[in-house]
Amino acid sequence: MMIDKKSLEKKYSIGVDLGGTNIVSTIVNYQGEIVNSLKVPTLAERGKEATIKRIIEAIHKNIVQSSVAPDNIIGIGIGAPGPLDIKRGIINFAPNLPGWRDVPLRKILEDEFNIKVVLENDANAAAWGERCFGAGQGVNNLVCFTLGTGIGGGIIIDGKIYHGNNYGAAELGHMTVNKDGPRCNCGNYGCLEAYSSATGIKNRIKNRIKEGIKSKFLNFDNDDELFESLRLKLIFKTARKGDKLTKSVVEEAISYLGIAIANIANILNPEMVVLVGGITNEGDKLLIPLKREVRKRAFYSNYKSLKIVIGKLDGNAGVLGAAALLWIPNNCSG
Amino acid sequence: MMIDKKSLEKKYSIGVDLGGTNIVSTIVNYQGEIVNSLKVPTLAERGKEATIKRIIEAIHKNIVQSSVAPDNIIGIGIGAPGPLDIKRGIINFAPNLPGWRDVPLRKILEDEFNIKVVLENDANAAAWGERCFGAGQGVNNLVCFTLGTGIGGGIIIDGKIYHGNNYGAAELGHMTVNKDGPRCNCGNYGCLEAYSSATGIKNRIKNRIKEGIKSKFLNFDNDDELFESLRLKLIFKTARKGDKLTKSVVEEAISYLGIAIANIANILNPEMVVLVGGITNEGDKLLIPLKREVRKRAFYSNYKSLKIVIGKLDGNAGVLGAAALLWIPNNCSG
Repeated sequence: MMIDKKSLEKKYSIGVDLGGTNIVSTIVNYQGEIVNSLKVPTLAERGKEATIKRIIEAIHKNIVQSSVAPDNIIGIGIGAPGPLDIKRGIINFAPNLPGWRDVPLRKILEDEFNIKVVLENDANAAAWGERCFGAGQGVNNLVCFTLGTGIGGGIIIDGKIYHGNNYGAAELGHMTVNKDGPRCNCGNYGCLEAYSSATGIKNRIKNRIKEGIKSKFLNFDNDDELFESLRLKLIFKTARKGDKLTKSVVEEAISYLGIAIANIANILNPEMVVLVGGITNEGDKLLIPLKREVRKRAFYSNYKSLKIVIGKLDGNAGVLGAAALLWIPNNCSG
Repeated sequence: MMIDKKSLEKKYSIGVDLGGTNIVSTIVNYQGEIVNSLKVPTLAERGKEATIKRIIEAIHKNIVQSSVAPDNIIGIGIGAPGPLDIKRGIINFAPNLPGWRDVPLRKILEDEFNIKVVLENDANAAAWGERCFGAGQGVNNLVCFTLGTGIGGGIIIDGKIYHGNNYGAAELGHMTVNKDGPRCNCGNYGCLEAYSSATGIKNRIKNRIKEGIKSKFLNFDNDDELFESLRLKLIFKTARKGDKLTKSVVEEAISYLGIAIANIANILNPEMVVLVGGITNEGDKLLIPLKREVRKRAFYSNYKSLKIVIGKLDGNAGVLGAAALLWIPNNCSG
């Protein structure tokens, strides 16, 4: 059934972000405004069935709280960690959701809510959110880096999410940027994620301290718990205060991210690169040295025509993009 | 005017490769068979006007030699070194063609031959040739590496050449693979081309010899001319004979090419990577260690679903692809 645009404008969709820590369910209108949002802990350790129950409860509660008539909700979009079988709506495996193996989440939710459900990789959903309602509105060739605990990505080509041959595209965190670099969670060595993700940056500081390199400001006496609570913001601030150890790690993180963006510029020549995730809170302190590195590395015309920007949706790119998956086959109002 | 497929099958097109050394003009039928081919030296040093005249003469001669009736020729496709303005059919600049600045080659040839002319980047033309008539027939997501003096590339997405935002996509030779690597012709450091192109391999051997590292087989006594005549085939053979110096350079060339392919696998998740150019004459001696490196680096499902193959058109991928550009907007019989 095709719905014309005029009636779509009065409709809503639900965007869900299924994370290892939290489940977020959000009612979104066609203009990309959040009508109601709800966050519950995933409690992944209680097992698959319990988490699925929590997803369902969160969506039900979200609908009730929003006061939107269920008839006006056209569907549910889920952003989930991969690897996924997007075509069949199955989560094959999720490192942060113990016990999840080949879970037909789309069918489960379709049966429960009797509504259209779309499953998408969470980083693709974030890219799609920025494309539809954020920094990338109206941009048809766009690459998004999601810079969080890990590093993911989403590629928009000709205004559509690019999935690749078997839904494995846009693993931007797993570009090899240094052949002999540190081991990455994926098994490879020298991935971008091992240098420029929050975890990568923290691990590299930790390892240097363990090697006996002194920091002027950081000293955890091998207290791993204390170390885990260390925030990216503090690391960047410490680096700016002139702490050699953190400065070198932060500079390397930015330099390798710049190399990855330059590679994307030379390979895909996109109109825009959008950065989302915690590290982007640094704003120009991140962007300025990053652009300098990209300029040094990429073909000048590819660099010159490239907008490198920070996303505009804060933490909501994922849920907004998931919700926007419903707005007609891979297209949106933006 | 649309031409139906049946009448196309009896038609011909002309594929031209405009290189710094030679101009090749080829009459090709719809099935991708070469009816007649002609090679003339470019004589680029005689200047732009002289070279344009040689291109025109070569095409005229090629038509006459082929005995194909001019009415049965639907157009001319040109593969040319970049940067190009493909949309307007202009060669902006060509490092190997002195004096070429903003040359409207499409219009010049259209006026001369009164026939449709399409201009394309030479590496994209090679990718398109392999897609239409070579190793990539029927493959809609394909990435081609052209491994010659330099390294170029072509990306086919959804059965079409992917150009990027301003025709700058697929500069695969200019992926940074080592942040602190040797200087590349493009101005950057540590590009793939600086390691894995024929020139890169030769320069690295030369520099090591100059640094005083001894080779068991190679000794040119600083005779640059003698060195220039050194062939890739001899280098690979010398490496296999156990010469440490050449072995380490060749191994590094293959390793970095493997990293570049693994990056492409993780970024674009294509169905196939096609390798063309001189180095592919090594066959399995190249492919086996290359696949080993890709397997080590790429996500397993992206590696497993990826065919890494050597092109099937020998030196003709470029002209065949250029000719195939005429077979209706970006689609071909393959």
